[in-house]
Amino acid sequence: MKKVYLSGILLLLGITVMAQTGQVPSGPAPMKPEMTEFYEPEVRVVQPATILGMAPSDAIILFDGNDINREWEDSEGKPTRWVVRDGALVCVKGAGIIRTKRKFNDFQLHIEWRTPAEVVGDGQGRGNSGVFLQGLYEVQVLDSYNNRTYRQGQAGSIYKQYAPLVNASRKPGEWQTYDIIYTAPRFSSDSTQYFTPPRVTVLHNGVLIQNNVSLRGPTLYIGIPEYSIRKHGAEPLVLQDHGDPVAFRNIWIREL
Amino acid sequence: MKKVYLSGILLLLGITVMAQTGQVPSGPAPMKPEMTEFYEPEVRVVQPATILGMAPSDAIILFDGNDINREWEDSEGKPTRWVVRDGALVCVKGAGIIRTKRKFNDFQLHIEWRTPAEVVGDGQGRGNSGVFLQGLYEVQVLDSYNNRTYRQGQAGSIYKQYAPLVNASRKPGEWQTYDIIYTAPRFSSDSTQYFTPPRVTVLHNGVLIQNNVSLRGPTLYIGIPEYSIRKHGAEPLVLQDHGDPVAFRNIWIREL
Amino acid sequence: MKKVYLSGILLLLGITVMAQTGQVPSGPAPMKPEMTEFYEPEVRVVQPATILGMAPSDAIILFDGNDINREWEDSEGKPTRWVVRDGALVCVKGAGIIRTKRKFNDFQLHIEWRTPAEVVGDGQGRGNSGVFLQGLYEVQVLDSYNNRTYRQGQAGSIYKQYAPLVNASRKPGEWQTYDIIYTAPRFSSDSTQYFTPPRVTVLHNGVLIQNNVSLRGPTLYIGIPEYSIRKHGAEPLVLQDHGDPVAFRNIWIREL
Amino acid sequence: MKKVYLSGILLLLGITVMAQTGQVPSGPAPMKPEMTEFYEPEVRVVQPATILGMAPSDAIILFDGNDINREWEDSEGKPTRWVVRDGALVCVKGAGIIRTKRKFNDFQLHIEWRTPAEVVGDGQGRGNSGVFLQGLYEVQVLDSYNNRTYRQGQAGSIYKQYAPLVNASRKPGEWQTYDIIYTAPRFSSDSTQYFTPPRVTVLHNGVLIQNNVSLRGPTLYIGIPEYSIRKHGAEPLVLQDHGDPVAFRNIWIREL
Repeated sequence: MKKVYLSGILLLLGITVMAQTGQVPSGPAPMKPEMTEFYEPEVRVVQPATILGMAPSDAIILFDGNDINREWEDSEGKPTRWVVRDGALVCVKGAGIIRTKRKFNDFQLHIEWRTPAEVVGDGQGRGNSGVFLQGLYEVQVLDSYNNRTYRQGQAGSIYKQYAPLVNASRKPGEWQTYDIIYTAPRFSSDSTQYFTPPRVTVLHNGVLIQNNVSLRGPTLYIGIPEYSIRKHGAEPLVLQDHGDPVAFRNIWIREL
Repeated sequence: MKKVYLSGILLLLGITVMAQTGQVPSGPAPMKPEMTEFYEPEVRVVQPATILGMAPSDAIILFDGNDINREWEDSEGKPTRWVVRDGALVCVKGAGIIRTKRKFNDFQLHIEWRTPAEVVGDGQGRGNSGVFLQGLYEVQVLDSYNNRTYRQGQAGSIYKQYAPLVNASRKPGEWQTYDIIYTAPRFSSDSTQYFTPPRVTVLHNGVLIQNNVSLRGPTLYIGIPEYSIRKHGAEPLVLQDHGDPVAFRNIWIREL
Repeated sequence: MKKVYLSGILLLLGITVMAQTGQVPSGPAPMKPEMTEFYEPEVRVVQPATILGMAPSDAIILFDGNDINREWEDSEGKPTRWVVRDGALVCVKGAGIIRTKRKFNDFQLHIEWRTPAEVVGDGQGRGNSGVFLQGLYEVQVLDSYNNRTYRQGQAGSIYKQYAPLVNASRKPGEWQTYDIIYTAPRFSSDSTQYFTPPRVTVLHNGVLIQNNVSLRGPTLYIGIPEYSIRKHGAEPLVLQDHGDPVAFRNIWIREL
Repeated sequence: MKKVYLSGILLLLGITVMAQTGQVPSGPAPMKPEMTEFYEPEVRVVQPATILGMAPSDAIILFDGNDINREWEDSEGKPTRWVVRDGALVCVKGAGIIRTKRKFNDFQLHIEWRTPAEVVGDGQGRGNSGVFLQGLYEVQVLDSYNNRTYRQGQAGSIYKQYAPLVNASRKPGEWQTYDIIYTAPRFSSDSTQYFTPPRVTVLHNGVLIQNNVSLRGPTLYIGIPEYSIRKHGAEPLVLQDHGDPVAFRNIWIREL
């Protein structure tokens, strides 16, 4: 901002004049720049990565290309049957979902995913998986490159709630990125109502596709999300097994 | 989502039973998956860039490393005295602000900036510039690497309104990125009040530093923003001349 | 607020000291009361009624106990077949809805209604009518005194969207009041999406039953409201003909 | 709502057809009314008062015209020196604030107040008191009948934050009402920031004067409210002693 220097003497005089006249003032007494400058507490320093998409210094690395079992487990808390192949975490059909051992509230998440280069099936049957925020709210993973399905079921949709603003999909077999900003719900005393709903922003391959949308309730395949709301706290991140060998890599999260 | 197959016959029977008993139903009649699947209108396709941070196919390129004058002008609508050096747009002290010839409402903006490698001055006097959204709301540009100033005046602050969540600054002389999601205000019939305030999300070098904050009013160096609100529509993007030779490059914007 | 008197001289000295030391200040420079006092524009004067529930001086009287046709018409813009009886506006079965000739955006509405003293039918079949805000969003009118129906279908519900917080119904045959604060939706450029949804607060017989709820979309008897959103501007107020001789009186509205 | 009867058989057939053709459906499969009807849990019954402004059955009576000490105390938790006169609670100059012994979060509040019939002083010096929601957020009480002061300091203002939408004041010596709907703030993990700010709706003598405004922070006579935010939970209701013999009566509150 450009600096403007006020005379403190004039400031004082101005106020004195106002007090003497008894008129309705034309405006409030003037301020000085220093009145709106706060130094404490100092803002915490974070070391950003040298390349966009890589983890900054305060991120929790959820998958680094090697060990699945450090941060992930299956739905029963046991080691998963998903596999590591070429540094990627690959879904094995029938192995079921995987979830993080940690639980999260509000966060910034980066995750990369790839659907099979060899195209099999169509609609919901091609390269289907999902990133479930707090295990309840799905950002759809799907091969949506030249593959029409219902709007709120394609890649980048909040499944059955919000279609993506645009379809920014890459070709099958190419790595794609989601950068997700998630704000967890807060609940009213009535545990079946949100006080504030979950909110989600998603960038798909760097393109904004969900702009702080307010979720209606947990993701449902059948039914109306509003009526499935139940109070919850911190919950794990979940990756879906929808039967397709979708791969994931470079997964990191920052708690907000 | 996992698929669950319901029998339509059972569904019908279930409804019939409910109608006959006259009891309060224990829950609503069941739905089918197809009842929440919408195909129209088809989601528009956008070609993402191959590298994060580069422009997707539907972006307006505001600076491509060559011509300043195609998209920018000075505060009087004339050619600016800012210069192009090594493919970057560099502020010339005393040349004044530059603004886009186009005007924008809601948008996604990518902009890269660099403060001088040779450190001169301190606090607000080191590598100071600014990105003014709609010409009114400043995301501060400053060399905030080992350079303490007031919280809401450092790099990534919404100047004098919101400190950044963290300080994700790179060293002076290094290129830094802002990815900004901006929602313009809507006004009440009283033109001095927002119906909904402007909202801003900022990622600094890929790190979330402003999470959908609601602005209090136009950026002020002196005073209280709430009392400076005046109705406006689409407005240009503005880069500030604060006297320091700050450089900018790879500027693109997507209207939302 | 309690008044605190600051010495302007001390204020000036304080600032001077800060400038000399070059230390990080412990807090911002102090302000004076007059800096946050604004006199213009003067707030408009409204004469309140002497009794709660009666119209203040700036209200539009939509029904004063006599003439239906001044402010109301049927769905084709013709005179309605609803009748005036004992100073009340009474629904005639088969006459269809009535709507105001005027159109409204945001408003405060007071309306009184009475279901028949002689109870006929049950559930949705007893004293059913409705107040449609902007012709699209129904606040349910029903005899809900000892008359169970589905939660979001009883008196004071936002029909099929929000059950009332409590059931504050009077007995059939008694006059009841709704005081409604309504904020119209604003639309995104995509005309099938709200930028901000309609919001409704309702007091039923003086008891808060809807607390600034965000509507999901136009009221639907069958289906999901979100998918029926279509852009609209100012719209009339509508009273429903559901076949029961529900009466209305003392209807006034203030545009906000 | 008008009832529409669908044939379950046709519904089934419709779905079958869609599955066979393999075309993009023109719309989702149709629903039935019962799919959006929920009966549980039953909505709680409240007995409204027979006259608008009087307490419903679930209200806590904070002052019934007799005993001050049952619900109120001074700022040190001791009996107050305010007095009961003609069934009203009257401020005694120098006695200090009074506060409720109970603490509240979200609530609906009804309170009646009267400034002295004999006019003394002007501006902030005439019939000044205040209703502090959660002890922190002031709805101003003032004789604002033909008594100009700063906008956000007159009767019905959220003191130094929001002027009332209109001036609905009665004459000095007449009883006036406030009906207040208050939503307490929720805090982020950073205890100096609101996750959601406090929100206030006020009806003054039945006229809407504050429409769900978002408070900037605790009420301040001097300074900027945003920088005084500190985490708090349930807090008492407070009535201010500003030196004038303002009277209060018929005070009741409903926790939300």
